Amino acid sequence: MSKIILTGDRPTGKLHVGHYVGSLKRRVELQNSGEYDKIFIMIADAQALTDNADNPEKVRQNIIEVALDYLSVGLDPAKSDIFIQSQISQLTELTFYYMNLVTVSRLQRNPTVKSEIQMRNFEASIPVGFFCYPISQAADITAFKATTVPAGEDQEPMIEQTREIVRKFNSVYGDTLVEPQILLPDNKVCLRLPGTDGKAKMSKSLGNCIYLSDTEEDVKKKVMSMYTDPDHIKVSDPGKIEGNTVFTYLDAFSKEEDFGLFLPEYNNLDELKDHYKRGGLGDVKVKKFLLNVLNKELEPIRNRRHEYEKDIPYVYEILKQGTKNACEVAEQTLSEVKAAMKINYFDDVQLINAQSEKYSG
Amino acid sequence: MSKIILTGDRPTGKLHVGHYVGSLKRRVELQNSGEYDKIFIMIADAQALTDNADNPEKVRQNIIEVALDYLSVGLDPAKSDIFIQSQISQLTELTFYYMNLVTVSRLQRNPTVKSEIQMRNFEASIPVGFFCYPISQAADITAFKATTVPAGEDQEPMIEQTREIVRKFNSVYGDTLVEPQILLPDNKVCLRLPGTDGKAKMSKSLGNCIYLSDTEEDVKKKVMSMYTDPDHIKVSDPGKIEGNTVFTYLDAFSKEEDFGLFLPEYNNLDELKDHYKRGGLGDVKVKKFLLNVLNKELEPIRNRRHEYEKDIPYVYEILKQGTKNACEVAEQTLSEVKAAMKINYFDDVQLINAQSEKYSG
Repeated sequence: MSKIILTGDRPTGKLHVGHYVGSLKRRVELQNSGEYDKIFIMIADAQALTDNADNPEKVRQNIIEVALDYLSVGLDPAKSDIFIQSQISQLTELTFYYMNLVTVSRLQRNPTVKSEIQMRNFEASIPVGFFCYPISQAADITAFKATTVPAGEDQEPMIEQTREIVRKFNSVYGDTLVEPQILLPDNKVCLRLPGTDGKAKMSKSLGNCIYLSDTEEDVKKKVMSMYTDPDHIKVSDPGKIEGNTVFTYLDAFSKEEDFGLFLPEYNNLDELKDHYKRGGLGDVKVKKFLLNVLNKELEPIRNRRHEYEKDIPYVYEILKQGTKNACEVAEQTLSEVKAAMKINYFDDVQLINAQSEKYSG
Repeated sequence: MSKIILTGDRPTGKLHVGHYVGSLKRRVELQNSGEYDKIFIMIADAQALTDNADNPEKVRQNIIEVALDYLSVGLDPAKSDIFIQSQISQLTELTFYYMNLVTVSRLQRNPTVKSEIQMRNFEASIPVGFFCYPISQAADITAFKATTVPAGEDQEPMIEQTREIVRKFNSVYGDTLVEPQILLPDNKVCLRLPGTDGKAKMSKSLGNCIYLSDTEEDVKKKVMSMYTDPDHIKVSDPGKIEGNTVFTYLDAFSKEEDFGLFLPEYNNLDELKDHYKRGGLGDVKVKKFLLNVLNKELEPIRNRRHEYEKDIPYVYEILKQGTKNACEVAEQTLSEVKAAMKINYFDDVQLINAQSEKYSG
């Protein structure tokens, strides 16, 4: 069986370094591993609209931002099909039929949906589209017969919902769909990068994100004002590593070679941490190191972005081609789904013949 | 503004005389009135699947039955587009986006959904597709910009749900969709014809329906064993009209001219009823009259049906053509909907230009 990846992001904002270490970097590695037969990367605008119905402009404007972010981190249209969800009408058709295979109470029990509802303060006024997004996600995954969904642990209940739908569909209508597996990140540290202010979640409104599209100047400002250990006042004070954002970022980004390049007094991150804990190491020095480490990672991304920004119509062409490719695969799956459900009446010669016979008999 | 009708039936069984007096007869009159610019008649297989997901074969086999019933009562493919819901993928796409405009609690409050759920003994295990069918129905109605939905009073909350979605969509995305009005039956008596056993509801499993496709022999058997007044034992006994199925059917079917044709001793139904109430009028005589009345109505239907039954592939051709016509209209609406939501990115030259400018600036 071929190995197929489906993954993607909601286009509700530019992507930041949290997305990068949490998923994008891995995605590029998977793409370049040669282990996968097909890779589909979805800009999930239709899903974003389920809780942004009143603000389609936000979603619309961010599609190009996310596409630029994708291309700039090294997702390669020659290897991965980058597509826009809403342009694949087959996904809504699959969603529609899968809705018959899931009960309302099953959706209500989905822990991911529960916590997302809480996060958005929806309570009683959850939009039906948002409530049903696990089903829509099942359509996205199964449309491409994805075997592999790279995602965080928190997404496991969503993938389980997809597997349930697959099993139910296959048992009622015959083997058609493929059960996907989640592919968890290999580096737990990177799962959730905090904001530059030390808050657990990066958010545009808090202004605590380092974006992939930030200039060197932006990144400098953000790193130099990063949250560290508030009790580490004088250089000579011993400092704390836990909850110290600068070190969390170093955990996520720095490699041993970076010390040789930018901070040769230390052999590795452990030595740097030890010095900080002992006292005698100032925040500014650590921040400058982080800045170098980050810029080494971000500069090629920034450069690629600038190249693509010069030709926006070409980026749309890439999306159009990726969407076309994705559409063909989804159409094939949908036609298999309809044949399994036997709702492809006009192509069903057997049905028409049997009924003709019934009435002539 | 043009006047457009959307109506239809779930293909879960052959249509019976209850459907005929309750909707089909009126539908033919509306069709032939010349008052409507377009008439769309939907065989709602996708809706039927929302609570028959496990039994697609039932739905599948009944599509042709319903189509034959439609054609035999006089729905004319030259005047009305008869189409199969599941073959119009645009309807699922509209449903998907409308789902963002309705809250879960709003659906839960829908009285029609409430009572349908009760009727089906769903309780906690309502399929999501069934729960959402008011939204799917809004998609059906608005896809054709229907102004007029002929339906019973019990469907008013469904039409109100559609109007709410239309208003919400138009207010968020700009004027695009048309608010439909319900067209109630003009003859309240005909709303709900009871079963031949006097039970309120005709149902296949109770075997108490007279089908449009029943033979003359079938109809005779069913009428002669119809429920009347259980206390009307001897001909001389006074009889009751209320709850007497034979008279309910006569209310629905008989015309004054029928007395001249089949029962010239009486001038009209009132005279017949009076005699029955007084006593001295036997059930058999009234039943024979009803049989004549019914056969007069059903015979041309039966004959037309036999003609169409001889050429099932032609009936499928009619459905295919109706579906094609409906599809074109739905596609036009969908493209307006997507343009209003501004999710027609690839066609949106303004968007691409504005973004090119942003990055070149």
